[in-house]
Amino acid sequence: MSNATSWDQIDTPAACVDMNVAEANVRAYQAYCNQHGLDLRPHIKTHKLPSLADYQIAQGAVGITCQKISEAEAMLDGMRTKDVDLLITYNILGAAKVARLKALSQRCRLSVVADNATVIAGLAAGFDASAPLDVYVECNTGADRCGVDSAEAALQLADQINAAAGLRFAGLMTYPPAGKIAEVRHWFAEAQAVFAAKSVAIPRITTGGSPDMWQAHEMDLADELRVGTCVYNDRSLVERGTAKWQNCALTVLATVVSVPAENRAVIDAGSKVLTSDQLGLNGHGAVLGRDDIVIDSLSEEHGRLVSDGPIDLQVGDKLRIVPNHVCVVVNMLDELVEIRDGQVIGPLPVAARGQVR
Amino acid sequence: MSNATSWDQIDTPAACVDMNVAEANVRAYQAYCNQHGLDLRPHIKTHKLPSLADYQIAQGAVGITCQKISEAEAMLDGMRTKDVDLLITYNILGAAKVARLKALSQRCRLSVVADNATVIAGLAAGFDASAPLDVYVECNTGADRCGVDSAEAALQLADQINAAAGLRFAGLMTYPPAGKIAEVRHWFAEAQAVFAAKSVAIPRITTGGSPDMWQAHEMDLADELRVGTCVYNDRSLVERGTAKWQNCALTVLATVVSVPAENRAVIDAGSKVLTSDQLGLNGHGAVLGRDDIVIDSLSEEHGRLVSDGPIDLQVGDKLRIVPNHVCVVVNMLDELVEIRDGQVIGPLPVAARGQVR
Repeated sequence: MSNATSWDQIDTPAACVDMNVAEANVRAYQAYCNQHGLDLRPHIKTHKLPSLADYQIAQGAVGITCQKISEAEAMLDGMRTKDVDLLITYNILGAAKVARLKALSQRCRLSVVADNATVIAGLAAGFDASAPLDVYVECNTGADRCGVDSAEAALQLADQINAAAGLRFAGLMTYPPAGKIAEVRHWFAEAQAVFAAKSVAIPRITTGGSPDMWQAHEMDLADELRVGTCVYNDRSLVERGTAKWQNCALTVLATVVSVPAENRAVIDAGSKVLTSDQLGLNGHGAVLGRDDIVIDSLSEEHGRLVSDGPIDLQVGDKLRIVPNHVCVVVNMLDELVEIRDGQVIGPLPVAARGQVR
Repeated sequence: MSNATSWDQIDTPAACVDMNVAEANVRAYQAYCNQHGLDLRPHIKTHKLPSLADYQIAQGAVGITCQKISEAEAMLDGMRTKDVDLLITYNILGAAKVARLKALSQRCRLSVVADNATVIAGLAAGFDASAPLDVYVECNTGADRCGVDSAEAALQLADQINAAAGLRFAGLMTYPPAGKIAEVRHWFAEAQAVFAAKSVAIPRITTGGSPDMWQAHEMDLADELRVGTCVYNDRSLVERGTAKWQNCALTVLATVVSVPAENRAVIDAGSKVLTSDQLGLNGHGAVLGRDDIVIDSLSEEHGRLVSDGPIDLQVGDKLRIVPNHVCVVVNMLDELVEIRDGQVIGPLPVAARGQVR
């Protein structure tokens, strides 16, 4: 594949990224944020590419978001941008990880989040006043994952952070539930009132989520957005109306290896490429140009395609598939195939793949 | 993690393999096959470890099964066994892949499968009589994935294989549906009759599937079994009654990073470790010792745990999780943690991880 110069020569299965589309996606959302006075801090979990993070910052992003320390380390290893502003939206726990966080803080402008006193105490033990760490309090605005449930609980943690010599309260962070902008706005309005009553400043409010990305300005209390998926887009965002098929930068190229029945075919991409993430959708991806086909089951190396009538595919046919959830597909492969101006450029190593710690 | 010498020092999330359990699983199933006069050709997709494949062969396996060429290449690169007998149970298609297959055939005793004339023609073009390739015909015995639907169709492909100078018909292969041993037996009995009527020998019948592994002898027409998952076992096999919890060699070690509500906790292992494979089960893995907990949702780096009553977990607690489907978990990580005699040995690189082509 490294010598591939045309689509025909791409060895399948492969995940192909049209970099023109990806860069257009970056510019379009940066323009939206500029228009609405919002800071953009893209989550790199979708692309995991230092070069694309550099591009995002060059277009106006204030920094990047990572989810784990190892992911941040891999990104900094590859990025050309100096003095990156980097937020890790995760509870970092344990002395070993806090030591790595300390080392990381010397390579970038670092901030993290916390939603409990144990995590804050651990961070406080690893940092001192000479180089304090910025810590956001994570708030549960309805997604019911991490985050404190009330403004009062957030204030209590903010006080704990401000009381630690090595920490600075940076503001409030949330990963919001989709389709609930009014509720998220209400949550933060209440938090502002509770904090103001105790004269505790909230330096910044940061929120995320590609599903509601074009309505983010309606949640007018946020300073910053941390969208990830929209750099490539995927079937879940198209089905939601957030993106169109032509905005999907990543497609999985697969070959039909068997047509064992009139209404059934099998491709060489299974869960090791497409993953089992369904995000509530029917099937395991959209076959471009073939709305009649459902990828109805995956095993590790086989994808099964079915249709109501004759499937009209031949062994050897190649198909392009928009995955349900693009972030997890990127994480499956050591390298993607880069496309520019319709040309196959070559392999694109996924620098921060598989970084879970 | 590379310096970890105790469980406490393992950085989480991590997938830990108790090699004593894995080796006992290998020996137990080899003994079953020996008792019933069955050849065992384990599928390496579960462990992806050359050293464990060597162990399987040393215990009596006749060879190994791989699913893709790249997987076979990675295994041979690392194995110490000389002259490995290696079956790739996949339709290999396209000149580039057939050329790689040819190169592979010079490194081992190789066989492949085919379920259509296009694949056979491609193989025939790449091999010649000086070193013919063994080709099985894949049969659909009810799993409705790949495979020909009838004994007559199988015979037609066997004839095509035997007519090609560079190919040899090796026999019939199936990936059987679970719980349908009688039906699979019936399929092959019919095939034997159809082939015998035309005086075409079936050198070998090979079948697979861990779910029915302990009943495999009832399908008494098979010469060979290609089980994979049972080297480690997982929640799906325990729930099916095929294995017990103590036979599960791989557990995911995770840390509780948040307890945001009385009945909810969040661990640092999400779909990037546990994957979204549910195999029909409720939740995303079994928390050992905590039957009351369900891992009810995963995002990439978060696993959400819920219980009916108080969840009784503290931030910092470590949990061991038996995944629903172990093969796909192994594929997520560049390295596992090897455990022997209760001791942490160190990192175990997953040599054939992510090999999809």
